[in-house]
Amino acid sequence: MSKQRKITLQENEIPTHWYNIVADMANKPRPPINPANHEPIGPEALAPLFPMELIKQEVSQEQYVEIPEAVRDVYKLWRPTPLYRAYNLEKALDTPAKIYYKYEGVSPSGSHKPNTAVPQAYYNKMEGVKRITTETGAGQWGSALSFACQFFDIECEVYMVKISYEQKPYRKLMMNTWGASVYASPSDRTQAGQKVLADNPDSPGSLGIAISEAVEVAATNDDAKYSLGSVLNHVLMHQTIIGQEAILQMEKAGDMPDIVIAPFGGGSNFAGLSFPFLRMNLAEGKNIRCIASEPTSCPKLTRGVFRYDFGDTIGMTPLLPMYTLGHTFVPAKIHAGGLRYHGAGAIVSQLLNDKLIEAEAIDQLESFEAGVAFAQAEGIIPAPEANHGVATAIREAKKCKESGESKTILFNMCGHGNFDMSAYEAFFAGKLERHELTQEEVNDAVAKINTPEVV
Amino acid sequence: MSKQRKITLQENEIPTHWYNIVADMANKPRPPINPANHEPIGPEALAPLFPMELIKQEVSQEQYVEIPEAVRDVYKLWRPTPLYRAYNLEKALDTPAKIYYKYEGVSPSGSHKPNTAVPQAYYNKMEGVKRITTETGAGQWGSALSFACQFFDIECEVYMVKISYEQKPYRKLMMNTWGASVYASPSDRTQAGQKVLADNPDSPGSLGIAISEAVEVAATNDDAKYSLGSVLNHVLMHQTIIGQEAILQMEKAGDMPDIVIAPFGGGSNFAGLSFPFLRMNLAEGKNIRCIASEPTSCPKLTRGVFRYDFGDTIGMTPLLPMYTLGHTFVPAKIHAGGLRYHGAGAIVSQLLNDKLIEAEAIDQLESFEAGVAFAQAEGIIPAPEANHGVATAIREAKKCKESGESKTILFNMCGHGNFDMSAYEAFFAGKLERHELTQEEVNDAVAKINTPEVV
Repeated sequence: MSKQRKITLQENEIPTHWYNIVADMANKPRPPINPANHEPIGPEALAPLFPMELIKQEVSQEQYVEIPEAVRDVYKLWRPTPLYRAYNLEKALDTPAKIYYKYEGVSPSGSHKPNTAVPQAYYNKMEGVKRITTETGAGQWGSALSFACQFFDIECEVYMVKISYEQKPYRKLMMNTWGASVYASPSDRTQAGQKVLADNPDSPGSLGIAISEAVEVAATNDDAKYSLGSVLNHVLMHQTIIGQEAILQMEKAGDMPDIVIAPFGGGSNFAGLSFPFLRMNLAEGKNIRCIASEPTSCPKLTRGVFRYDFGDTIGMTPLLPMYTLGHTFVPAKIHAGGLRYHGAGAIVSQLLNDKLIEAEAIDQLESFEAGVAFAQAEGIIPAPEANHGVATAIREAKKCKESGESKTILFNMCGHGNFDMSAYEAFFAGKLERHELTQEEVNDAVAKINTPEVV
Repeated sequence: MSKQRKITLQENEIPTHWYNIVADMANKPRPPINPANHEPIGPEALAPLFPMELIKQEVSQEQYVEIPEAVRDVYKLWRPTPLYRAYNLEKALDTPAKIYYKYEGVSPSGSHKPNTAVPQAYYNKMEGVKRITTETGAGQWGSALSFACQFFDIECEVYMVKISYEQKPYRKLMMNTWGASVYASPSDRTQAGQKVLADNPDSPGSLGIAISEAVEVAATNDDAKYSLGSVLNHVLMHQTIIGQEAILQMEKAGDMPDIVIAPFGGGSNFAGLSFPFLRMNLAEGKNIRCIASEPTSCPKLTRGVFRYDFGDTIGMTPLLPMYTLGHTFVPAKIHAGGLRYHGAGAIVSQLLNDKLIEAEAIDQLESFEAGVAFAQAEGIIPAPEANHGVATAIREAKKCKESGESKTILFNMCGHGNFDMSAYEAFFAGKLERHELTQEEVNDAVAKINTPEVV
């Protein structure tokens, strides 16, 4: 009964640096290339969209980048986050495995997203940016950026996919509470939006359209920049604070994971927890399995191809080396909206290609079964995205039961589901569907990719 | 920049005992009396509804009651909760005051309510109870009890006011996720419900009706007991873990509050934070001001009378010595549903009558203005109930600005507002109303009270 459930750190144990895994990779991620001539693009091509300091981080080869004091100060509002031993889940599964989870849902917006939203807002502020634009689907990223901009007195302009805007008014209100302006996309505020509305006044919008609107505003206004919540190298690096804290906490628990697991959308969640552990593999010869958990409805890691592809749907961005299903691929409307992205960031894609990480796909039904089991055992109701990590952890714990091995499993409980209860409603009502792509669907998606091979 | 925002405790610093303020009160709270003959009732009268251990705690004169190891073990899922210095709010208010807040929103159900739900479920389990019934309005209490019952494998049956059941489906789903059965009240499962439905098939329900249903089920089934989320002595005592932790944290911060503030519904929130500080006043001669913050729409502490009154609306309970507006008083439908209760618990009422605590009333609009200011400064979006404490803290901080004094203010941020965003929507849309009772309305309410004086 006197077992320790929660491993807590003090504020002065918040890491002072982000970890840049690129420094330790033998095969570096390939650079982004220009869609017109397939030449590598330089940092200057990104300058209209991002502040210079973030562009430097995007291409940095340094192993560690110092976290500015002002950013650490805002992190203190919710960091360090707790790491838990999931005794109740272990008992419910009757497994000899030891299960731990890092809980990022304690942030004000309820997920890991503020870990990068805060430094992004900070660097923009330092470079005189008055306004940041972004897109959001379900609203996790938009909420996090709104929260961050509030702190640094920057205007935040969020283009929210119209169907989500209408179906998820509470996420919008959260952004409003933090002072952000939220527009249903397509909007009449941009040429991109106007064009879509002219063709289809009733368009429900899409993440691709919303990105186009946010990018257009940033590109055409000197006082505005654009911000992205995953995929890019600097975004992933900011999230490594999660794994660094987790290592400290595992050490305090006198344990170290054999398996590290996180949900996978664009890569920031997975990178955040796993990269500091991967460093031990790359630099210290450890052999920790790192598993990315993606939905079967959007299986770019497990069934996609490693190709150059656009980061957005419409094709406005540079080409990135990605495991991808093609930038025009439209995943089924699963509730884990944050995992409905066609590609994986360049670093993660390189690591997967080099077999330094693993991936597996989880069906929506299995993810919710896992989430409910977790909620009933541990009390926290996870976000639908987070349920994928839980499901993979449960799979591994069950394997331990079969083999009798007592492996140590750590997963990222990246956010709570307080704004996602309608998804649980659908699950309890038996209305959730499985969404596994047929081989034909995968072939069709991949066949549409007409961008270059990664060489 | 290196200021400490968050004061964290380790698991082994979770208090081992609850504090029972009755032991330190010169004037003890008056006992409950029988409505039929006005004689004090003994513990046996409560036995059909509550397990014996909780009845013992209800009448205990011991200064400290040990927290069972199994309860502390569940507490570890979210306790100790953090205590924050609100530097950003201080800056926004430009006040010399030092503002701290204790954050109870990190619990799985998002408020302080599990602090008593867990021990109540535990003691019921120890005495062989198979099923616990309760009522809930907005859903905070029902969620907390569902969560607690899940842990001890007890059925939980929640009667949820029908209009809330329909308007707040996510709270219901949260309870379902933790395995509880939730019924819209009035239901056809009880005689009380059937009677109401016979008279009015479209009844929207009320907390009074829901209490009647929950009590009826507990009273007429040997395997079932009833559970209450505030008002009673044992409930308030369980919450004192909040204030005990806060004292440890204030000591670590090298500070001690001059003023302690908490929202007030039935008393458990206020008691939880303030009673351990009041102990310093009663037993050590300290002079910490403790202020209960109630809504102007339900001002029992500031404008009610100290009388014996029923705990429920229909008049099924024993008579309790309460500051009350009368058990038939129907408060305006403010969004802070947890504060819409006609009376105050016996202990708090005695303390107020003895001028050992203070109370003030906050209008709904002022409460939301305060909540938005807090969210913008500190990141956390508070529950509507919590906004009342914020508003009182801001009032005191502004007084400090006027006087130039640097007082230390501590308030209870008792829960997050993730399930209350519709209330913020109404606020932003300018649709929230002030609800201040006229003197005539107060006089009318009080005139209807036909129960005995407290002597």
